[in-house]
Amino acid sequence: MTQQSLEKLLRPSSIAVIGASDEPTKVSGRPIAYLKRYGYDGQIYPVNPRRDEVQGLKCYPSIGAVPGSVDVAIVAIPATAVIQTLNHCADAGVASCIIFSSGFSELGEEGGAVQREITNIARRSGMRVLGPNCQGVFSVGARATPTFASAFAQGELTAGPGAIVSQSGAVAAMLYQLLGNAGSGIQYYVATGNESDVTVADVMLDVVRDPEVSVVLGYLEDLKDPEGLARAGDVARQEDKPILVLKSGRTAEGKAAASSHTGALAGDDDAVEEFFHKHGIVRVGDLIELAAFSQMFGQRKRAVGRRVAVVTNSGGLGVMVVDQCKELGLEVAVLQPETIAGLEAMLPGFASAANPVDVTTQLLFDPRLLSRAVPLLMDDPGVDAVLASFGALGGGYDIDAIIGDLAQANDDHDALLAVGWVGAHEDTIRRLGQRGVPAAQNPSLTVRSLAAYVQFSLDRADAVRSGPSATTRGIAADVSTTNPGPASVPSAADVIAAYQPLTVDGFLSEYNSKRLLQELSVLQMSDVLLAPTSAGSSDLALPDFPVVAKASSPAIPHKSDHGLVVLGIPDHETLETVVKELTSRAEDIAPGTVEGVLVQEMVEGGFEAFVGVKRDATFGHVVVVGAGGIFIEIFSDYQCVLPPITYEYALAKVEALKAFPAMAGARGGEDADYEALARLVVEVGRAVEYLGDALLEMDLNPVKVLPKGQGVAVLDALVKLGEPLATPTP
Amino acid sequence: MTQQSLEKLLRPSSIAVIGASDEPTKVSGRPIAYLKRYGYDGQIYPVNPRRDEVQGLKCYPSIGAVPGSVDVAIVAIPATAVIQTLNHCADAGVASCIIFSSGFSELGEEGGAVQREITNIARRSGMRVLGPNCQGVFSVGARATPTFASAFAQGELTAGPGAIVSQSGAVAAMLYQLLGNAGSGIQYYVATGNESDVTVADVMLDVVRDPEVSVVLGYLEDLKDPEGLARAGDVARQEDKPILVLKSGRTAEGKAAASSHTGALAGDDDAVEEFFHKHGIVRVGDLIELAAFSQMFGQRKRAVGRRVAVVTNSGGLGVMVVDQCKELGLEVAVLQPETIAGLEAMLPGFASAANPVDVTTQLLFDPRLLSRAVPLLMDDPGVDAVLASFGALGGGYDIDAIIGDLAQANDDHDALLAVGWVGAHEDTIRRLGQRGVPAAQNPSLTVRSLAAYVQFSLDRADAVRSGPSATTRGIAADVSTTNPGPASVPSAADVIAAYQPLTVDGFLSEYNSKRLLQELSVLQMSDVLLAPTSAGSSDLALPDFPVVAKASSPAIPHKSDHGLVVLGIPDHETLETVVKELTSRAEDIAPGTVEGVLVQEMVEGGFEAFVGVKRDATFGHVVVVGAGGIFIEIFSDYQCVLPPITYEYALAKVEALKAFPAMAGARGGEDADYEALARLVVEVGRAVEYLGDALLEMDLNPVKVLPKGQGVAVLDALVKLGEPLATPTP
Repeated sequence: MTQQSLEKLLRPSSIAVIGASDEPTKVSGRPIAYLKRYGYDGQIYPVNPRRDEVQGLKCYPSIGAVPGSVDVAIVAIPATAVIQTLNHCADAGVASCIIFSSGFSELGEEGGAVQREITNIARRSGMRVLGPNCQGVFSVGARATPTFASAFAQGELTAGPGAIVSQSGAVAAMLYQLLGNAGSGIQYYVATGNESDVTVADVMLDVVRDPEVSVVLGYLEDLKDPEGLARAGDVARQEDKPILVLKSGRTAEGKAAASSHTGALAGDDDAVEEFFHKHGIVRVGDLIELAAFSQMFGQRKRAVGRRVAVVTNSGGLGVMVVDQCKELGLEVAVLQPETIAGLEAMLPGFASAANPVDVTTQLLFDPRLLSRAVPLLMDDPGVDAVLASFGALGGGYDIDAIIGDLAQANDDHDALLAVGWVGAHEDTIRRLGQRGVPAAQNPSLTVRSLAAYVQFSLDRADAVRSGPSATTRGIAADVSTTNPGPASVPSAADVIAAYQPLTVDGFLSEYNSKRLLQELSVLQMSDVLLAPTSAGSSDLALPDFPVVAKASSPAIPHKSDHGLVVLGIPDHETLETVVKELTSRAEDIAPGTVEGVLVQEMVEGGFEAFVGVKRDATFGHVVVVGAGGIFIEIFSDYQCVLPPITYEYALAKVEALKAFPAMAGARGGEDADYEALARLVVEVGRAVEYLGDALLEMDLNPVKVLPKGQGVAVLDALVKLGEPLATPTP
Repeated sequence: MTQQSLEKLLRPSSIAVIGASDEPTKVSGRPIAYLKRYGYDGQIYPVNPRRDEVQGLKCYPSIGAVPGSVDVAIVAIPATAVIQTLNHCADAGVASCIIFSSGFSELGEEGGAVQREITNIARRSGMRVLGPNCQGVFSVGARATPTFASAFAQGELTAGPGAIVSQSGAVAAMLYQLLGNAGSGIQYYVATGNESDVTVADVMLDVVRDPEVSVVLGYLEDLKDPEGLARAGDVARQEDKPILVLKSGRTAEGKAAASSHTGALAGDDDAVEEFFHKHGIVRVGDLIELAAFSQMFGQRKRAVGRRVAVVTNSGGLGVMVVDQCKELGLEVAVLQPETIAGLEAMLPGFASAANPVDVTTQLLFDPRLLSRAVPLLMDDPGVDAVLASFGALGGGYDIDAIIGDLAQANDDHDALLAVGWVGAHEDTIRRLGQRGVPAAQNPSLTVRSLAAYVQFSLDRADAVRSGPSATTRGIAADVSTTNPGPASVPSAADVIAAYQPLTVDGFLSEYNSKRLLQELSVLQMSDVLLAPTSAGSSDLALPDFPVVAKASSPAIPHKSDHGLVVLGIPDHETLETVVKELTSRAEDIAPGTVEGVLVQEMVEGGFEAFVGVKRDATFGHVVVVGAGGIFIEIFSDYQCVLPPITYEYALAKVEALKAFPAMAGARGGEDADYEALARLVVEVGRAVEYLGDALLEMDLNPVKVLPKGQGVAVLDALVKLGEPLATPTP
């Protein structure tokens, strides 16, 4: 059955509470208490066979007895009764359920089995299910509060442009509190719990389209729904809204044991990082940053450049803020002479009118100084953002005037404004936030959030200027793993069927790896395979001497560990001897698996790189491109790319390698053909999509990046094939 | 004249205020107001020729008219009158002056000249001078407040174990406020301003010995007194107290234009970093961190290991804190079965008794849960520190009980305890701090400060275990640049006098560079210099063929840029031709400077490294050791070392290179003789100290680190000599 949209879950006209309690502080009593407290004007149906009335409302004995249609049914009953209740809900035509109850997959396999049944009910009936083990929803616009979150029991609602979407209720509550402290607030608060049906991504995809929402804050422990997240990221780009995500489990030891170089090198978090980057989702480091970034990213203004003017009451603080700006890629604005003249006219002689602008204790004696100085800076055509950095503003300072002047300047000007105020009262920070000025007590945090916002703004502007971005095009292409490959190539299934019999433990020999990749147009092979018997025949089209010879066997994937590679063979005669030796040595190691000896051109020089593929449990195939050689491994110089891959995106990844300057001819070195390396990445990405799940690993290592115009030479290749995995590749 | 100690400046028995105002809120009125407010029981002498009485105290017409001895005279008068007044103070036998007045070196050269006169007066008279352009001193133990800092105008004094020593008054004030917010406080507050005489280092050296002080907080914009800071660091080590320093100007474009590889590579901040590291001074990133670290480092307990147990009320927060711990080098403690059993007995079934320990909302219903759970964790022999990470503790939670239980556990146990509490009231953080529990609203900040403290504790413990540390021994040796070198070597002056005539633009040829280094026992040269005429003579003891030949001229320091290096010369005959060619080519480039052709052994293999020396304006010579080759430059893989250098310290630096695993035989590579590289660093350090200021730059590049036991081969050497600099080397 088709799944319904989340419209009724997130903006319900009627809410039933199954297991409703008369006690407004109990978990099963809170939703009704909150609905009343926040003025919900839809229908409320308490359901409880043991009561006629709950919290002053008529109570129904079962969900089937409820007279009207039900958009949301809250399930707040013991875990053991949940399945039956859900079936009743589905039968009664309930649009969506929110299961508060815990005791499912979080308890291990037994609970997991029950939870899978929940998923089945949802899939079968089309009814959407949030949870189990979730705090539920607060939907501000609808004044709908099907939640038991303690955060809403007291105090005022802090409404604002944010949407909190979190797998954890406690984390959602912390974020809500932090936003409130920062003078910001929410339109949605959704805790998805165990995600038997509705995921964080599903909710994001809905709320990001709400005109009242200008920033989405996500918290994820598991990436259960990468496809959905990718879509949410793409829609957020269309809507020109930011999605900020905090993903925990960064250092989890999830590195799968892998036989290939690539698999061992790139950790799982690299793929996560690349996934967010590709889909324009901004990843933050911790909760405090997420809340601070929310304020910065939730504003209507975008940055148009990196040039920052700092205004401060302390020269020392000004220097530190400038340091941090430079470290994070912001630039120190050079002020126009008129701006400096204007500042000098309003500042005492010992103050600094250069950037950073130090207004000194003059601010004590001239409380409205900022009402003149900040607009002057924001009007300067060389200034894209103003960082107001204060500290030690004790007794005597007119805090109201400072807040008011900053807020006014922010309202009146296009340049960005952000405040870092050491030792400010929490109330000062909140009031600035309420007036729309991003502010924090920690100037470093302000600089970090400004720097991230500038980068985000410029990336978005780039995407607009250059039409659909590389990433968007990649997604728009919607190349699924079942798409037909190039017309000249047989079906993937046929190719795999042809090569699978040649594998040992999944591995193809170098020769067959290259042959497969040649068939998929990834490379052109000039290598020659000499059968053991043909060694002496000189009529084969061998490469020019000197040559390289390698024993070829699928059972010996790491040939050089076994002395099965011989370099610099000068002539026919030597080759003949080497072929015999290699064949016999390889036969000793893996009898009956030796295909022959592979003879290759000896490639001298070039920049050593590698291209590989690993499988990630969440994202499927990840293509990895990096600098080669032993030292480079130590310096972890590689980039992950998720297929489908456009040339522009691959090139950007190659350019992002730390060793790129060396490839691009730094220190008078030769310019290497790094464009060819980028093309190889694209081709590998295509091959990967074509082969689909059957491709387990691929290593092209080393790849020699030759001088400009001469392309790349793939010196070794290793492909591992397997059965398609159970997990579907997104 | 001998400079007095800072005893009377920091703990004065009598304070005169020159230019005293009757108005207690004016800059020149505040010191007396503060002295009264904070109960100073020494003598107070207002000095002002226009008044008989100031703020109720008898006023004197001049400093000379003051009846008693004066420990501190505050100078709060216009800049133009300062010199005359200082002379009067010196004549009157005043022990120390604090100059509030501004208008000196901060205004440029003119003010700088007057300030130098202040320095002269101090040096001449022995009177100590703090400032000018400084906020002065608050000395809590002495209840002495010769300061005008606004921070002390209102509110309670927040006394505590910290000593704030800052070049900037505003930054000192911010720190004071932040410490107060964190429930910590100070014994000293000293703002040194322009430092005409007394520096931050001087003050640190005094206050670090005060038994009431357990942590020193420094803020530096300029490193004016590296020698003093080094001493302060060493004394802090003896006293087993931490010095935390915030140094601004991290990204300053201070890289001197340098002709050597080493000079261009290592930025000024690298030397600063190494300087602090060498002297056991902990450098922090920003003000917020400095205040948070102060609380952590100011406690009496030290860490004895890295194993952390996390206790939280949110599984999500627990995961994030664990992530951060791992990223910062802390370990996740494995709890003993008894600990887990104990926790399980007190936690509900759905809570997690493994690490991170999730107490869930159980804390709401069992408010004293932490009084049992935290001691259990702190008693676990596998736990060195407990991180309590909370959030979303809204209405209903017994905050008093939580604070009390945490503080009690911290008092009763040796393990460390630190708190990160998202959304905590500022008052909660302050109360925890007042009870001695390091706490912050940002769990990431708590983890950062704990990780830094664990590293600091373990470093200190290492130093104790291994006797005087490498660093301490280095310092204790107190090798000055005028020390005699090895007995067999003539005086440095003689050596320099012998080599200086051989330089062009300060450079020695490779041959003479190596000859000099051989004379200083840095290396053994086997190279042979063939004079242009001697090329054909075969009776010279040439190295075995193949050899390398290089034209030798002090005028061509970068030989390979001019095709003056020929590798792999197979025999005598070829060498003869090459020598002629190189000589003639070099003569074309720099006529009359060619010494001949240097013939060297051709060294194959080995790990490519370099050792160099640059001069830093602040620290004098910096020895730099790094991995060689073009890629390594891109990855900035080098370490700075400040002479004098012990072998242990040099070895630690070599081991700290990112490429060290490659040298130590990673991936089955050959084990290189990295100990020999460390010995070379030591020898270079000795040569540097011996040559003193006359050595401007040195580059040993490449240095081939040969297989274990075979030492290193210095393939090229470049020494630049010059006149001694004006700045004295510390």
